[in-house]
Amino acid sequence: MTSHAIYAGTFDPFTVGHLDIAHRAADQFEQLTIVVVDNTQKSSLLSLQARVSAIQATFANDSRVSVQALDGGLLVDFAKHAGATVLVRGVRSVSDFEYEVPMAHINRELSGLDTLMFAASPVVSHISSSLVRQVFAAGGDVSAYLPPASLQALTTGARNA
Amino acid sequence: MTSHAIYAGTFDPFTVGHLDIAHRAADQFEQLTIVVVDNTQKSSLLSLQARVSAIQATFANDSRVSVQALDGGLLVDFAKHAGATVLVRGVRSVSDFEYEVPMAHINRELSGLDTLMFAASPVVSHISSSLVRQVFAAGGDVSAYLPPASLQALTTGARNA
Amino acid sequence: MTSHAIYAGTFDPFTVGHLDIAHRAADQFEQLTIVVVDNTQKSSLLSLQARVSAIQATFANDSRVSVQALDGGLLVDFAKHAGATVLVRGVRSVSDFEYEVPMAHINRELSGLDTLMFAASPVVSHISSSLVRQVFAAGGDVSAYLPPASLQALTTGARNA
Amino acid sequence: MTSHAIYAGTFDPFTVGHLDIAHRAADQFEQLTIVVVDNTQKSSLLSLQARVSAIQATFANDSRVSVQALDGGLLVDFAKHAGATVLVRGVRSVSDFEYEVPMAHINRELSGLDTLMFAASPVVSHISSSLVRQVFAAGGDVSAYLPPASLQALTTGARNA
Amino acid sequence: MTSHAIYAGTFDPFTVGHLDIAHRAADQFEQLTIVVVDNTQKSSLLSLQARVSAIQATFANDSRVSVQALDGGLLVDFAKHAGATVLVRGVRSVSDFEYEVPMAHINRELSGLDTLMFAASPVVSHISSSLVRQVFAAGGDVSAYLPPASLQALTTGARNA
Amino acid sequence: MTSHAIYAGTFDPFTVGHLDIAHRAADQFEQLTIVVVDNTQKSSLLSLQARVSAIQATFANDSRVSVQALDGGLLVDFAKHAGATVLVRGVRSVSDFEYEVPMAHINRELSGLDTLMFAASPVVSHISSSLVRQVFAAGGDVSAYLPPASLQALTTGARNA
Repeated sequence: MTSHAIYAGTFDPFTVGHLDIAHRAADQFEQLTIVVVDNTQKSSLLSLQARVSAIQATFANDSRVSVQALDGGLLVDFAKHAGATVLVRGVRSVSDFEYEVPMAHINRELSGLDTLMFAASPVVSHISSSLVRQVFAAGGDVSAYLPPASLQALTTGARNA
Repeated sequence: MTSHAIYAGTFDPFTVGHLDIAHRAADQFEQLTIVVVDNTQKSSLLSLQARVSAIQATFANDSRVSVQALDGGLLVDFAKHAGATVLVRGVRSVSDFEYEVPMAHINRELSGLDTLMFAASPVVSHISSSLVRQVFAAGGDVSAYLPPASLQALTTGARNA
Repeated sequence: MTSHAIYAGTFDPFTVGHLDIAHRAADQFEQLTIVVVDNTQKSSLLSLQARVSAIQATFANDSRVSVQALDGGLLVDFAKHAGATVLVRGVRSVSDFEYEVPMAHINRELSGLDTLMFAASPVVSHISSSLVRQVFAAGGDVSAYLPPASLQALTTGARNA
Repeated sequence: MTSHAIYAGTFDPFTVGHLDIAHRAADQFEQLTIVVVDNTQKSSLLSLQARVSAIQATFANDSRVSVQALDGGLLVDFAKHAGATVLVRGVRSVSDFEYEVPMAHINRELSGLDTLMFAASPVVSHISSSLVRQVFAAGGDVSAYLPPASLQALTTGARNA
Repeated sequence: MTSHAIYAGTFDPFTVGHLDIAHRAADQFEQLTIVVVDNTQKSSLLSLQARVSAIQATFANDSRVSVQALDGGLLVDFAKHAGATVLVRGVRSVSDFEYEVPMAHINRELSGLDTLMFAASPVVSHISSSLVRQVFAAGGDVSAYLPPASLQALTTGARNA
Repeated sequence: MTSHAIYAGTFDPFTVGHLDIAHRAADQFEQLTIVVVDNTQKSSLLSLQARVSAIQATFANDSRVSVQALDGGLLVDFAKHAGATVLVRGVRSVSDFEYEVPMAHINRELSGLDTLMFAASPVVSHISSSLVRQVFAAGGDVSAYLPPASLQALTTGARNA
């Protein structure tokens, strides 16, 4: 069976920290689908479509990686339907770890799909979408934390927001 | 003096994880009162009354356990008035632990009432009301995580919500 | 160069825990500026001005300490402009620590300003503005957790809120 | 059934942090047995008998508390034989918590005896036997961290060591 | 390229917690090599050979899994030489996580080999070789925590120890 | 009063992670003394003198930094005698943080000297003397983790060990 990993998140925006995980996941599994989840609990800075497009642009030349939106329903149902064999997550901190573990167990109980965690690479382990949004909202320079397409989406998207 | 423990929470909904703590607390103390607190900071999935009723149904045959609602005011005032001798809490994770400790100290400073913590049993240590609500909202099957009365409350309550 | 520390926070309200850090920072650095930040993500219990005034009253007799409001923009831009040489933070817990570390790195990357952390003194390590607000909202006595001027601000401010 | 708690440790030496837990446990349960365990993995600073005697002297006037040595075998076997109904532990930190939880689960699986955890009181939450031993070995003053009988045992015991 | 995971540890003894990780790793990767490392820092309860044999017996009918001993040198050199594509680790707790992360980074820097972490399944998340050794040394029943071959190795090995 | 920081550790060996902290501390305080402590609990890889010499060589051109050995007694007594105004520590992880905090409190109680913590820079946050020793013992290349003088000390020292 072809190994196929799902890397899901809100990616609001997709940072160089997410890029680190996606590259490493693409190296371990034959196929990688990045799934952009709409956060129903709070409004996003970028629209779901803007996030999908930015990530697609980022991986335009990497045929192993595809990008899809999940606009509702369980991630594991989506993943099973897509033929995924595993879920992957990046973990930067103890807080991340404690957030991921119960979700991983419940996802396995619901679907049989297991979760594998990558430790964020040291050089990007302090970068998060929420800090990027915070710095951006205060007028700071976030270009070091984003792939070019994400930065452009943020600059454009924020203007229209 | 009769030992009387208070087990308080929002219980939105009451899960098999809460059930684990309640059973163990009922085994250690002569009397156990489960106090359902109305979360004023966000709206609940189930009404306060629906949560109280579901827990009462769950312990219908256990005379050691009673259930009450707390609709405002300090938990420790309620507890002192009820003749409680101790507060009990379940702790699943480091995050839980760090949340509980300052609250326990402040409750003791305000009232003299001490707090005792149970470590969640391994088999239910990944279950939380918030994950149950999330899976339920996405249409997933949460029956493994809830006592029958909680599941029924959720199914019925969600229809009317 | 004169050492000049910035101690920033929302201070809603300023507690005896914050006082502990401010006193210790004032002992280590020649100048200390307490910066009251307006939290744009949620409404505060006390107005920005009420918080500034209460802290000013608390340090009325300490010429090493000044208090300012930050109503927008990056803290590090404010700090550079004020001639600060370092940022200081109090850390009570592992959660605090994990919150501070990425912010410290990003602040250093944005501005070159480093962050130094004090471990909260044991006797106040369980005190937080959020617990104070919670106890206060439930009608509890918070006088043990606040300097007199903060307590007065809370009592007065809450009446008008 | 009379509630009977076991508070076990190596207590090398018994500190004011241990005293905090013992007093609070004695307030919650009708009977408290402090069990001094011989650490087989490393040599102790004080002999098992010296530790038992110091704790006995500390609780000489508290009829609720008795002290015993455990020189081998499982703690839970000892506890069951003594008629204990619960084990109690003090927890100062996340590290403590993570150490206690698996042991609590295994003790319950081996014996049915549950474990209840107290959060160390803030004012003593930084005190540990190992730090006391370290300061003592370097010639520092540890009198603030020990009940009088423990301090005397350390002073006398160390002379003979 | 065939995916080939290395699962290394001291496995002194190999527990049902290790078995959980090995089964899940074998489901994700085409080949799994379990590498038994000789801990040079402290003496083991079971000999290296006894540990290898017990694990071989445990996986006798699973052709995806092989077992080897590592008696010195870097794990990543061994892994590269064996054609491994990834290292896998089980993580039970925050302490485990913090132990694994720096090692994972250094292993990647030394060899290019990445590490993937599995969260221990809830039902075995409290089981560790060290607790098993401790219970065993005190005469307790550890049969619930070990695969049959490990239990036999322990019983036999300990007799000769 | 001249600000004078003490940065103490066993530094066995002094890594680029320690270098990061020392540079940042030297930027914040007028004077920095690096104190090499002899670990009495386990034998060191490098002799106390070899460690002192390597650090001295590393800071040969930085007049703000001096290096001294502490061969017994309390660090805070040494620090007070040297006219230090503060202790500084690097913190890489939650485990580090939990190790540092109680020691900081006890050092302040013993001497009045406060402790300030730096969060390790991301790019070196996974590096520790113990991992370096482990990789070195297994024949791995540790040159990326050590300043030149430390690497030389290790290579030379290990030959004689």
